[in-house]
Amino acid sequence: MHVSKAVITAAGRRQRTLPLQSLIDRDGTEKSVLRILVEEAIDAGIDEICVVVRPGDENAYAAVVGEHAGRLHFVAQTEPLGYGHAVLCAQKFVGGDPFLHLVGDHLYVSRDNQGCAHRLVQIAEAHDCAVSAVQPTRESLLPYYGAIGGRRLSGRDDLYQIDTVLEKPTPTEAEQRLLVPGLRAGHYLCFFGMHVLTPTVMEILGRLLADENNRGLPLSTALDEIARREQYLALVQQAQRFDVGVKYGLLTAQVALALNGRDRDEVLTRMLELLAVREMKG
Amino acid sequence: MHVSKAVITAAGRRQRTLPLQSLIDRDGTEKSVLRILVEEAIDAGIDEICVVVRPGDENAYAAVVGEHAGRLHFVAQTEPLGYGHAVLCAQKFVGGDPFLHLVGDHLYVSRDNQGCAHRLVQIAEAHDCAVSAVQPTRESLLPYYGAIGGRRLSGRDDLYQIDTVLEKPTPTEAEQRLLVPGLRAGHYLCFFGMHVLTPTVMEILGRLLADENNRGLPLSTALDEIARREQYLALVQQAQRFDVGVKYGLLTAQVALALNGRDRDEVLTRMLELLAVREMKG
Repeated sequence: MHVSKAVITAAGRRQRTLPLQSLIDRDGTEKSVLRILVEEAIDAGIDEICVVVRPGDENAYAAVVGEHAGRLHFVAQTEPLGYGHAVLCAQKFVGGDPFLHLVGDHLYVSRDNQGCAHRLVQIAEAHDCAVSAVQPTRESLLPYYGAIGGRRLSGRDDLYQIDTVLEKPTPTEAEQRLLVPGLRAGHYLCFFGMHVLTPTVMEILGRLLADENNRGLPLSTALDEIARREQYLALVQQAQRFDVGVKYGLLTAQVALALNGRDRDEVLTRMLELLAVREMKG
Repeated sequence: MHVSKAVITAAGRRQRTLPLQSLIDRDGTEKSVLRILVEEAIDAGIDEICVVVRPGDENAYAAVVGEHAGRLHFVAQTEPLGYGHAVLCAQKFVGGDPFLHLVGDHLYVSRDNQGCAHRLVQIAEAHDCAVSAVQPTRESLLPYYGAIGGRRLSGRDDLYQIDTVLEKPTPTEAEQRLLVPGLRAGHYLCFFGMHVLTPTVMEILGRLLADENNRGLPLSTALDEIARREQYLALVQQAQRFDVGVKYGLLTAQVALALNGRDRDEVLTRMLELLAVREMKG
């Protein structure tokens, strides 16, 4: 398997101006959120990127990715039919190929110089199957994520065979269906917002969404079916993941990028100066 | 004098997407930079606001000010002829009235609940004249600001009569023409990015800019002439002013807003958690 395509979904209502927001990346350069994601994909070996947007957002998005604009294809999600449908909008772009999928409202800060998407694509290519990035997550956070059940691959401490996928499971559901041997008590493997998927997912989404009763279907429903039909792995990412769509999400991501980047000392100093000014005046 | 109009300049090349950036204001609400500025003006008693933009930016800007869109008038600066010219673009809007002027790439965080613009407008109305907000600034920062010379008004420690205005003076010029009795050694009164101006400034800008040789004229040249023709005061603001157009400017402004707002404890905790995660991993 060779992964050369990526799909970024950015058509959610709260997302519209999010990809346009500016942050300073770890390299000290000012970039839009969308550009940081596009570069995460390019760094993973991706050549062409499909961005699923609301109609009318294409030009504004293309304007903030700098020299990467030529790699971008835009597909408009013309009705707000949910996350699964947004992924399906990229069906024609994907064709018969596997693809990296990133959500447009999360940023990833890895512990080293290898990007999270790069590591994920490497695993997918080596094992020739779909792989989702996951992170051990406290039970109290289950209402925010898709979560998986499965078992550890022998000889690896960061790879799991996925048996089951549930979207926002209740603690009871999680305990019955998603317990993963070897994790800390009260923890589950939750999605990290980053996947390498096979074109099978488009076939499944197309079938499920042809039924009107499945409007608003989450991607997890299709991923659960993938787990039953194909080899499907979960890779535990050591990185930090930031939902930039929540309150103070951009701030938190910016501070994390700065603390892990070349401007660490400058930014730390500024933060301390602001605290000092505040305390002196207070 | 009653001040009911405001002019915000946001047509600079580096400014275009800046007014669209999202921050969490002191009240804990997510707002665009433009909306925070518009609310600063409204809080000062302003009814109508003219935003000077690059052609084509009108709709994007109108979309990010929420329920205040009805107060906004847009004027396009069709050629990049500089800051003085950008202010002059609002001449028809201003008519014969005084106006509050804010630059679109600065944010202000006051020490108390009274906004900086509110305090400035009060002084202008009470003294019936133009007033510029200033801050004592180290000599080393003179290359970034307009600066004033003058003398303290008797009986006030925060008000000065302006005699001279120079844009980005050299240390020698500043020492010869801008020394202000009573300031700390090596400090000058530099502009804070906020003024109440009389319509005289439009007359002066119109005359000066009719001469082709004055392309790119800074506002300060016109303000220097105001100082020679009218009563013109400088108000020392105790607040913090943030240039959000520079690297880490948005981050710094966001942290300052948070540390001075209702979410102070939440944001402090997050910053400390990020530092802790980083140090444990490092």
